[in-house]
Amino acid sequence: MSFSICILGSGAALPTGQRAPTAQYVECNNRHILIDCGEGTQLQLRKFGIKLQRISHILISHLHGDHFFGLPGLISSMHLLGRNRGLTIYGPTELQSLLLSFIEVGGHKLCFDIKFVVTESKSLETIFEDRLIEIQSFPLKHRIHTWGYRIAEKAKPFHLNAAAIAEFGLSLEDLPKLKSGINLEKNGKILQFEKFTFPPSPSLNYVYCSDTKPWTGYEKAIEHADLMYHEATFTDQHSDRAKQTYHSTAKQAATMAQKMKVKNLMIGHFSSRYDGSDQHLIEAKSIFERTICAEDGLWIDLEKMTHF
Amino acid sequence: MSFSICILGSGAALPTGQRAPTAQYVECNNRHILIDCGEGTQLQLRKFGIKLQRISHILISHLHGDHFFGLPGLISSMHLLGRNRGLTIYGPTELQSLLLSFIEVGGHKLCFDIKFVVTESKSLETIFEDRLIEIQSFPLKHRIHTWGYRIAEKAKPFHLNAAAIAEFGLSLEDLPKLKSGINLEKNGKILQFEKFTFPPSPSLNYVYCSDTKPWTGYEKAIEHADLMYHEATFTDQHSDRAKQTYHSTAKQAATMAQKMKVKNLMIGHFSSRYDGSDQHLIEAKSIFERTICAEDGLWIDLEKMTHF
Repeated sequence: MSFSICILGSGAALPTGQRAPTAQYVECNNRHILIDCGEGTQLQLRKFGIKLQRISHILISHLHGDHFFGLPGLISSMHLLGRNRGLTIYGPTELQSLLLSFIEVGGHKLCFDIKFVVTESKSLETIFEDRLIEIQSFPLKHRIHTWGYRIAEKAKPFHLNAAAIAEFGLSLEDLPKLKSGINLEKNGKILQFEKFTFPPSPSLNYVYCSDTKPWTGYEKAIEHADLMYHEATFTDQHSDRAKQTYHSTAKQAATMAQKMKVKNLMIGHFSSRYDGSDQHLIEAKSIFERTICAEDGLWIDLEKMTHF
Repeated sequence: MSFSICILGSGAALPTGQRAPTAQYVECNNRHILIDCGEGTQLQLRKFGIKLQRISHILISHLHGDHFFGLPGLISSMHLLGRNRGLTIYGPTELQSLLLSFIEVGGHKLCFDIKFVVTESKSLETIFEDRLIEIQSFPLKHRIHTWGYRIAEKAKPFHLNAAAIAEFGLSLEDLPKLKSGINLEKNGKILQFEKFTFPPSPSLNYVYCSDTKPWTGYEKAIEHADLMYHEATFTDQHSDRAKQTYHSTAKQAATMAQKMKVKNLMIGHFSSRYDGSDQHLIEAKSIFERTICAEDGLWIDLEKMTHF
């Protein structure tokens, strides 16, 4: 089990030498997910040692260029490298035709299938789940339709109590039931699973709030998040500009984190007008101490980060 | 007067850490031209110190992604940086709608005008000219419609012979005529301009042959080029693959250069299957000695390079 996040791009609309446009890679229990895909994402993946063919899900928040202009290039490279497994892309309704028109004009017939899923949830809705993870989308409040995403581990198996199992002489076949929290029946007697197990490790979740102004509409989605990424394009000095462009300041991101009791906050999408992110961090920390800044190439181990 | 070329991307379809996809910047007599625009071109421009707002003409060779996927991002950045002067883009007919659909979906109304000119020449045809330069396009032979471009200086002014001018006591008003090679009339007598001038500096030209297999159809366009860029995706070892994909080997590029008496050859668009371009260079030089390899960040001063 593992839950890691790599920041591929932490910049805003205008890329700089230090910050590529928005993209993040999430590896959750061997599921490989890309969130947003600004121009140059395929190069960032390569730079940070991530195998692009592993990606099975791509979540696009909205159709401003700094969040999806890298998608045609990434898909083309997947094709050129001979991909044969499918890919699912979640995003606004126009994405499918835009993307395919860019690729098909070159005469390419993709050698793998893309399944497009239109994101249109009006509240926190599950868009994908399997045995180990669940992905949900929720609406943000930006100038155009924009969605956030929540990636969560499913409930984990109970840990086995080896000593108790040995003492009762339980067999190998009993263990899967115990791990799943199911009582055993032996010689007509019920054996409570709690006797042979310890509680499971906590299930973690990561919440991604792309471009948005602060809004009550996504509070439920971010509540108690183990880690929330929240855009913080501006510092307090430019709060008027933030309001006007439907973006957030670092303080607003921190206020949301505090209000909804998230455990850790990561801010990013810093406007290129600032030389660095020091001021953003100072302002956010003045409200919510457990804040870090997204930096291109930052790898976060969510298990280790939340294990204290 | 100056004529410089900067290689922004020398790679082929799959970008690598060393080679971005195809893009070149040409500065010819204060005209600023971008040829092709692979993903990440705006970052390469920034990296190599080129002001992107200076670019007035963009020439797109064809609609394979590694030659145009950087265009939406570049145009968006020009918009975000408040551009107000127009831009002319030359390329295949589908380019306009593709590009605008990508930008307009984000709700942007560009703050500057783009004039689209459809490239469809069947032979060497002038697509732009002014007092100082001429741009021509010509057809190449690739899997989809593809064009090459030729950028040439117009005829330059005659150099003045100061001593002869002083000896005859000519006035300042006579000089523009002499520079243009026009005879003077003084007191009913014709004064031959050659007496007061030296020949102009040679007018230089740069020819860009994007993805193509070798073909007689573009021989006239490249003849006597001062510098020809010609793709050389493959080495001789993969000549079958070159034929199959309508690309060229380094030897084929060099053979074209030799046959059409170009003065200097630059090869590029090297497939990512090769670790470097050493073998391409060896093979090309075995046929055409004056060959160099395109490298990201290479600046060529065409005046100095051809002044010997």
